[in-house]
Amino acid sequence: MKKRPSDIKPARKTKVGVVGLGLMGTSIATTLLVSGHPVVAIASIPSDLNTASTIFQSQLTQCQQLGLLDKPLNDYLENLLITENYAMLEDCRLVIECVIEEEKIKISVYNKIESVVSSKAIIGTNTSAIPISQLQQHLKHPGRFLGLHWAEPAFSTRFLEVTCGDKTEIEYAEKLVAWAENWNKEPTLLRKDIRGFITNRLMYAVYREGLAQYEAGVADLDDLDKAFRYDVGSWISIMGLFERMDYIGVESFGEELAQLLPMLSNSKAVPEVMESIVDNNARGIHNQKGLYNYSPEEAKNWDQAFADFSREIFHLTEKYISDIENNDH
Amino acid sequence: MKKRPSDIKPARKTKVGVVGLGLMGTSIATTLLVSGHPVVAIASIPSDLNTASTIFQSQLTQCQQLGLLDKPLNDYLENLLITENYAMLEDCRLVIECVIEEEKIKISVYNKIESVVSSKAIIGTNTSAIPISQLQQHLKHPGRFLGLHWAEPAFSTRFLEVTCGDKTEIEYAEKLVAWAENWNKEPTLLRKDIRGFITNRLMYAVYREGLAQYEAGVADLDDLDKAFRYDVGSWISIMGLFERMDYIGVESFGEELAQLLPMLSNSKAVPEVMESIVDNNARGIHNQKGLYNYSPEEAKNWDQAFADFSREIFHLTEKYISDIENNDH
Repeated sequence: MKKRPSDIKPARKTKVGVVGLGLMGTSIATTLLVSGHPVVAIASIPSDLNTASTIFQSQLTQCQQLGLLDKPLNDYLENLLITENYAMLEDCRLVIECVIEEEKIKISVYNKIESVVSSKAIIGTNTSAIPISQLQQHLKHPGRFLGLHWAEPAFSTRFLEVTCGDKTEIEYAEKLVAWAENWNKEPTLLRKDIRGFITNRLMYAVYREGLAQYEAGVADLDDLDKAFRYDVGSWISIMGLFERMDYIGVESFGEELAQLLPMLSNSKAVPEVMESIVDNNARGIHNQKGLYNYSPEEAKNWDQAFADFSREIFHLTEKYISDIENNDH
Repeated sequence: MKKRPSDIKPARKTKVGVVGLGLMGTSIATTLLVSGHPVVAIASIPSDLNTASTIFQSQLTQCQQLGLLDKPLNDYLENLLITENYAMLEDCRLVIECVIEEEKIKISVYNKIESVVSSKAIIGTNTSAIPISQLQQHLKHPGRFLGLHWAEPAFSTRFLEVTCGDKTEIEYAEKLVAWAENWNKEPTLLRKDIRGFITNRLMYAVYREGLAQYEAGVADLDDLDKAFRYDVGSWISIMGLFERMDYIGVESFGEELAQLLPMLSNSKAVPEVMESIVDNNARGIHNQKGLYNYSPEEAKNWDQAFADFSREIFHLTEKYISDIENNDH
């Protein structure tokens, strides 16, 4: 039997902080509230003070609809303090920085956090653009600093990457992995700080090969979309990449890797189709112009469809997590 | 509005043939039966004559449980002829070869098929190991020959790759794509015959990068599994790779590609962990020894879980296919 998070660490009730109350910051704070933590939410820019309360109300309502709340919604709001005052972070054992991707601003935030929390409080950053090891240099106690890379919306996705910088002490990362399992996540531990973390690198490897096939005239973009969607989609919610190998019959993959690896694209160049996107000021469904074209209605349909799907896959995944937890590999 | 398959070609009622009644051949024949085709199923080895009938009964029962049958099960069986006699293929407009991956045997099957069908009947192969262009050389009328790469089980997955060899006339491939949409598939058209087709190349690109991270000590296999599963799984059943770019905001991908492509693994070597699999005679869940270890019960759990999941994702996907068909991009 797999070691369950509850055997490791009862993390609920521990006070935690979030700095930066944009889309991701609020979504992370909501996750922590729903997991039972008292949360100190720091509005790092004054305008966030005005909007945060409404956003939390809306996100908690979504969590309620997902069946994630076991108490009345207001009980969670009572656990939330929205403030501009960093001093309120004092007894937090974890503070997650979610401000914009500017190194200077982040460094100033770390200074403010470190001036009030204990030297053993974990400080995490939601950055996906700046190396953890680089940010870490600016901390007084760098060993407790690490990356926390979430998917949007944080409260209804299972994904979380916990990334060590060069100076992160592994015990802090392992503690956070255990906590994250109590947050309904299936966290991945990255022992080294690599650019793009794990999931972006895996996906960009796919994009490189897919764009190479498109440029070679093998298949259209929408045919590439269908191939990946309906192959991977038929198994990914129940097994990972390497579990898939074992399920199919792992013995055949060595030979196939030997044959296919030398044929895959090794291109370093951004394909022309992507360059033209920038030239055309295309922003995808956000301005209805991207690799595909959209009407305003379609863009709205996508948002609604994705919201519906997120709910459904969240519950479907729940079921198969249990199946797999009963396996002991 | 997207052109619907029914505007293009009413393919039902057309007689089709399948040669080779192993796991994949029967599963493909069942798909065709369920789609309304009369099917001539050729037992290419005598033992298949004994087993095929039971397999078809079982697969049609699974289709019934999936809600795919709109008539009594026996009506479909009445549309099925299991025989060793290739002459029964005479008026088939499509024949799909599903025999073992041996070129000599396949060539002998094509000779037998071509000696009875019209020169315009499409002949498809389910091969994933032998290039379409290479097999095609052995046909009298190579223009109507193409690859048809299915996922297992064919009747409850959406995935299908239609692959042109060097001599395939594109009209035949386009006709088959239109037919396949009537079979409840979301087919991908490959204009060129590339090794591994589209989906295997995309997946091997992921495996190359994932194994590189494992070998570099960044993350364990099960953490790589979680990262891919819970990231990709949170969106893949509703959007493809490039739709994903548009959904996230395609303008950011060019810069990110420029940064990440030069860092991705270009390795041609099979990683040591895969070599050791072969040395250890590991076959995954089939002998409970693979990249992970399994008990016999766990192996059985996996099969049941995958069967359950296949049903659920089939219906979930149905819903989001409709959402997307209402979009016109």
